[in-house]
Amino acid sequence: MILLTRKADFSAAHFYWNDQWSDEENFRVFGKCSNRQGHGHNYTLEVTVAGEVDPVTGFVVDLKLLKEILEREVVSVYDHRHLNYEVPEFAHTIPTTENIAVAIWRRLAGKIPHAKLQRVRVYEMPDLFADFYGEGA
Amino acid sequence: MILLTRKADFSAAHFYWNDQWSDEENFRVFGKCSNRQGHGHNYTLEVTVAGEVDPVTGFVVDLKLLKEILEREVVSVYDHRHLNYEVPEFAHTIPTTENIAVAIWRRLAGKIPHAKLQRVRVYEMPDLFADFYGEGA
Amino acid sequence: MILLTRKADFSAAHFYWNDQWSDEENFRVFGKCSNRQGHGHNYTLEVTVAGEVDPVTGFVVDLKLLKEILEREVVSVYDHRHLNYEVPEFAHTIPTTENIAVAIWRRLAGKIPHAKLQRVRVYEMPDLFADFYGEGA
Amino acid sequence: MILLTRKADFSAAHFYWNDQWSDEENFRVFGKCSNRQGHGHNYTLEVTVAGEVDPVTGFVVDLKLLKEILEREVVSVYDHRHLNYEVPEFAHTIPTTENIAVAIWRRLAGKIPHAKLQRVRVYEMPDLFADFYGEGA
Amino acid sequence: MILLTRKADFSAAHFYWNDQWSDEENFRVFGKCSNRQGHGHNYTLEVTVAGEVDPVTGFVVDLKLLKEILEREVVSVYDHRHLNYEVPEFAHTIPTTENIAVAIWRRLAGKIPHAKLQRVRVYEMPDLFADFYGEGA
Amino acid sequence: MILLTRKADFSAAHFYWNDQWSDEENFRVFGKCSNRQGHGHNYTLEVTVAGEVDPVTGFVVDLKLLKEILEREVVSVYDHRHLNYEVPEFAHTIPTTENIAVAIWRRLAGKIPHAKLQRVRVYEMPDLFADFYGEGA
Repeated sequence: MILLTRKADFSAAHFYWNDQWSDEENFRVFGKCSNRQGHGHNYTLEVTVAGEVDPVTGFVVDLKLLKEILEREVVSVYDHRHLNYEVPEFAHTIPTTENIAVAIWRRLAGKIPHAKLQRVRVYEMPDLFADFYGEGA
Repeated sequence: MILLTRKADFSAAHFYWNDQWSDEENFRVFGKCSNRQGHGHNYTLEVTVAGEVDPVTGFVVDLKLLKEILEREVVSVYDHRHLNYEVPEFAHTIPTTENIAVAIWRRLAGKIPHAKLQRVRVYEMPDLFADFYGEGA
Repeated sequence: MILLTRKADFSAAHFYWNDQWSDEENFRVFGKCSNRQGHGHNYTLEVTVAGEVDPVTGFVVDLKLLKEILEREVVSVYDHRHLNYEVPEFAHTIPTTENIAVAIWRRLAGKIPHAKLQRVRVYEMPDLFADFYGEGA
Repeated sequence: MILLTRKADFSAAHFYWNDQWSDEENFRVFGKCSNRQGHGHNYTLEVTVAGEVDPVTGFVVDLKLLKEILEREVVSVYDHRHLNYEVPEFAHTIPTTENIAVAIWRRLAGKIPHAKLQRVRVYEMPDLFADFYGEGA
Repeated sequence: MILLTRKADFSAAHFYWNDQWSDEENFRVFGKCSNRQGHGHNYTLEVTVAGEVDPVTGFVVDLKLLKEILEREVVSVYDHRHLNYEVPEFAHTIPTTENIAVAIWRRLAGKIPHAKLQRVRVYEMPDLFADFYGEGA
Repeated sequence: MILLTRKADFSAAHFYWNDQWSDEENFRVFGKCSNRQGHGHNYTLEVTVAGEVDPVTGFVVDLKLLKEILEREVVSVYDHRHLNYEVPEFAHTIPTTENIAVAIWRRLAGKIPHAKLQRVRVYEMPDLFADFYGEGA
């Protein structure tokens, strides 16, 4: 078994806010991330798949296909969007790095033929990232 | 004469829009950057100053002071903000990478003691940046 | 369960030396790292914590708190210090990348509320790093 | 137990081609990678070894020795070479990132004294890499 | 006046060889780069243009157009190619980093509307790059 | 004319101290950099040379020779050294990034055949660097 990882980038706006809380409580917990005009990031996504190397192609997964799946399922939906306002899974879920990793896992699960989705890593900044290995992990 | 460059980071939301134009024209020129909900970036700012090395300190400029100036004049104003809605110079100017570089130059000009502001470089993404050398350059 | 990783930097001096050995033996084993005047590095620390995402905040761990813990427990002690002479755990232990990773683990273990310390990674240079997963791992 | 990872670089040419297929089939599956003149990459290799920290040296593995092994077993054979034409393991195996990772594992297995080979990671580009953990993994 | 720089990547094979010389002389001067099977690199191209910021768009140059020009004039010709055998300007000119920078300048000169081509930078490796400012510079 | 830039790395210890000042004054001006045990950095050096491309070799400068010169004149003297105590030019000059850039210029000036030394850039950290263009610049 071998693991293959491909990166993709998207630029998006977001903010952190819990509707159940007062403005003061949101600011106390989320600090400057609670600014409701939003701010943004250049996110980097790393998707890892696991499988056997196909002896005919030398591939775990067809790279062009993997790129198309990431583009269609994630990048075309998140890139140049405001996550809180325009991406449905964040209508009632705060788009933290952790929650974005889980959401991308759910978008990709079952979509990659002949290989197992192993890990979704999301960098919000070069010095902060979240890893998700799936619901049962 | 020697040049000293210091980097700083800020994360902000923005979009490109010309009020004189129709929605269609904005989309035609600015593409997905015209989405008015905004998207965002991790911007990197590089500020270069020029001067003589002070023989007593070995510095062109006091680094702690330079860091404070960048923080006070730029980062505290731009970081975790929506540039179009919350930063005054972009109320009527589109926050392109070029215009952000010019705006930061104007914020810093004349503020750095004992050294000449030489260049402001702004990276919107790792593969796109603008350089401004001042009004008369 | 999800993993969250945060980076921090510190700049420190060190050298490699075993007091039980002759100068020649130290030089034979440690090469130029045995120079007792010391040399130094920009170290990068990556701390990974594991836990459930809090549905109220979307966080595995409060990021501001995590940053404060890394600053208080590690960066304020190691940064701009000579590890051999000024950091107590290296008085009788050689500050190799491996030993620094173990020492940072011990400084952080039990200090991060609501999450499990999963991994400490230390880069001495961009092309050399050590990972420690804890005493029983 | 602790893990130590060291990087090394090599620049090589390669192309993807299956002799059992027609030119059209090769182009359909491998796209521009099927150009038989070859193209090339700056590959980055990350080799991870696992072991106990030697209390006398503070090392899992002697770093100078590890560097020599990587140089002798891999870099001197792959660097500035055309993988398809000049490296024997790719005479009949397509040099995909996956297959290169497996081949490097086989070149290194059993060659590193006092430590266990844990993982071989090969970057073909900064946004694409393969990980191999050994035949039984 | 402001400068805008955009990066692009291409992966290509090449080797260094002077037909006027013996094999020994080629190896003496070019070392392992003289291997005629070729080796390869992930090249990074940085193209800098200079101009006034258009007050209507905030752009020095239309970014989508600039990207298309780089793709059409350079990347589509060089990427996944063997420079010596497949790119006409290197049929009789050695594809050193210096000569690649000059060749890309000539491909781009006069092709970028409303802005002046200012600099072409080519990275062969992260630690080696050439800059060309044009024939008269 | 074309410019060629090559990078090299060295790891060294240093501190900032002016013997004419009291301990308090040194701490006031230099902060944690004034710790006389020293701290350290992974420095990156970028050396740029300018010249005509030799039509026979395609080189501005012989790369193997340039690498040897950087190794002999700079890296072998600075790497794994304590700059204040072991490098003669810093016996009475504070090893700030600015002064290191000037010192490296003086070590290299006149040593590179067939090309003009154009710029010496020294990174102390990824976010701080100094550029020196020579005494008369």
